[in-house]
Amino acid sequence: THDYTALYEQIANDRLPMVMALEADRMANLDLSDSNVSTERNVVLEERRMRVDNDPQSLLVEQIDAALHLSHPYGRPVIGWPEEVRRIDRVEAQDFYKHHYAPNNAILIVAGDVTVEEVRNDAQTAFGKVPARELVSRAAYAEPPRMGETRLDVASKDAKVPLFMRVYRVPGYAEGAPGQAEALETLAQLMGGDATATLYRKLVVERHMATSAGASYDGYARDSGEFTVYAYPRPGVSLAALEHAVDAIIAGYAKSAPNAKELARAKTQLVAAATYRRDSQYAMASAYGQALTIGLTAFDVKAWPDRIQAIGGDAVAKAAKNFLLKREAVSATLTPAP
Amino acid sequence: THDYTALYEQIANDRLPMVMALEADRMANLDLSDSNVSTERNVVLEERRMRVDNDPQSLLVEQIDAALHLSHPYGRPVIGWPEEVRRIDRVEAQDFYKHHYAPNNAILIVAGDVTVEEVRNDAQTAFGKVPARELVSRAAYAEPPRMGETRLDVASKDAKVPLFMRVYRVPGYAEGAPGQAEALETLAQLMGGDATATLYRKLVVERHMATSAGASYDGYARDSGEFTVYAYPRPGVSLAALEHAVDAIIAGYAKSAPNAKELARAKTQLVAAATYRRDSQYAMASAYGQALTIGLTAFDVKAWPDRIQAIGGDAVAKAAKNFLLKREAVSATLTPAP
Repeated sequence: THDYTALYEQIANDRLPMVMALEADRMANLDLSDSNVSTERNVVLEERRMRVDNDPQSLLVEQIDAALHLSHPYGRPVIGWPEEVRRIDRVEAQDFYKHHYAPNNAILIVAGDVTVEEVRNDAQTAFGKVPARELVSRAAYAEPPRMGETRLDVASKDAKVPLFMRVYRVPGYAEGAPGQAEALETLAQLMGGDATATLYRKLVVERHMATSAGASYDGYARDSGEFTVYAYPRPGVSLAALEHAVDAIIAGYAKSAPNAKELARAKTQLVAAATYRRDSQYAMASAYGQALTIGLTAFDVKAWPDRIQAIGGDAVAKAAKNFLLKREAVSATLTPAP
Repeated sequence: THDYTALYEQIANDRLPMVMALEADRMANLDLSDSNVSTERNVVLEERRMRVDNDPQSLLVEQIDAALHLSHPYGRPVIGWPEEVRRIDRVEAQDFYKHHYAPNNAILIVAGDVTVEEVRNDAQTAFGKVPARELVSRAAYAEPPRMGETRLDVASKDAKVPLFMRVYRVPGYAEGAPGQAEALETLAQLMGGDATATLYRKLVVERHMATSAGASYDGYARDSGEFTVYAYPRPGVSLAALEHAVDAIIAGYAKSAPNAKELARAKTQLVAAATYRRDSQYAMASAYGQALTIGLTAFDVKAWPDRIQAIGGDAVAKAAKNFLLKREAVSATLTPAP
């Protein structure tokens, strides 16, 4: 992600010391020779071609993010712009590795059938001998104010169907005031979490305007979160009409507290999904790692379900009213080009 | 500008050695103490408040540039975003000064009643004793492709009248192919150089749609140029109708070569303006400095009138067709907010 690099292995627990030794080696002795960097650069470019350049929606999201963040590096894709990837050389790669991938800039998370003492001993043995390095401190970013709604209309030969998408820059879990991120999380679930949520129910099921519609919230970034709404029009429905219908639904949430029963169900869904995720060792470790790297604590992760349950309808309406502002958003359309 | 810092003095010629000594001192011994940096930071913020923050059009241009350049620092204002200015500290200022404001990164231009020998001797005396310093090499930038037209609609309480403005990212004199910048320069003069140019004549004089309209080209940047069109609607004329009319005029230029008489007049105007500018010592020195800092030569400056005169109607049409692409532009409106 923009904020951290996650490296992970799923292994039998007797392999833990070995894997730690490999990771400690990667931390100290990564082979950043010219030939290695040059090969990996091509791997990255190939990955980009497959995952981004061939997918008009991924390209659209890249352009939306670039337009959304006026000065913050969140506006640059994690994988890199193609030209930037092409120009990275060994010296830059080495420098980035040296000043970021250091033991004093890493968090180790182990989930599974192990004891704290075992993990601590093994980690001490493997990582204890890697000396700390001088870090480049993270720049403190503050975005300039956005003055107006930004619109981006893309026609692409690769697009199969039209799409309306809007991304708002909103508070995240790390820098938002207490409760703001939880209210946005709940709002996204209410509006677009699944096929029972408002956008899908109203636009797809009731009004037959869309073939799909939804909303999502990503609050696990260090400096700001993103709230996304999207809808695919049915044939014959204009993108403008569909956007208008989405706007009316958002305006409804901003105007008054949501239906109490729907709110309770959305919160239950969120908490249940988090509980299910923790059945996966990977997802559980990932949740803690993600939180810790952006400045939250293990306690924040544990207490999250309670904080979600505490969100009232007024907080949801306030979040919609204060944060789903067109001025803080990029509204985009993607249309198939002839 | 984004590409260079220009420091200049206009003085009696017997003061040249003294002023060079002062500039050499500024190059080596600038006082970047905490108290100085903190004071100057406030001066910058105050300048920003006066020139940018109080002027809705300046703010609009900042937002347009931020949306236009997806990854290039040309998207950041030269004066800085307010939050970035607030955070600059002595260490950063010192570092920037040390690695950029060095004698081996400077160009000295003297225009006036002096001989080459005098200037060389004086410069050797003053600057010869400032040791060269290690420079930070300029990053090679290449912008990711823009996928679609970006629109930005700003409502501002400070705006007195509505405004339509569009800025295209186009080739500049330094990186464009031979003749491209000159064709764009000529096109801007034809379309919007003054009150006899097409935008003004058609939209203000003939059709009474606008109170003012024009176009301009800025090609003196190292990595890309900008081509701007704008129009202020008359009361009762919608921004959409005005933009449509501007688009039709642009489409006309892209379709066929301009009227030969108008083309000849535009070129004469450009060359004459350059000649007049050279009556000013400041403007003449500035023209050379600007060109040299972005990688052009003194010969390029001298030969510019001939290159403009060589531009044919087809080259102008080709420039309009190939470079005035909405995909490569941000189209913006500014409207007075209630």
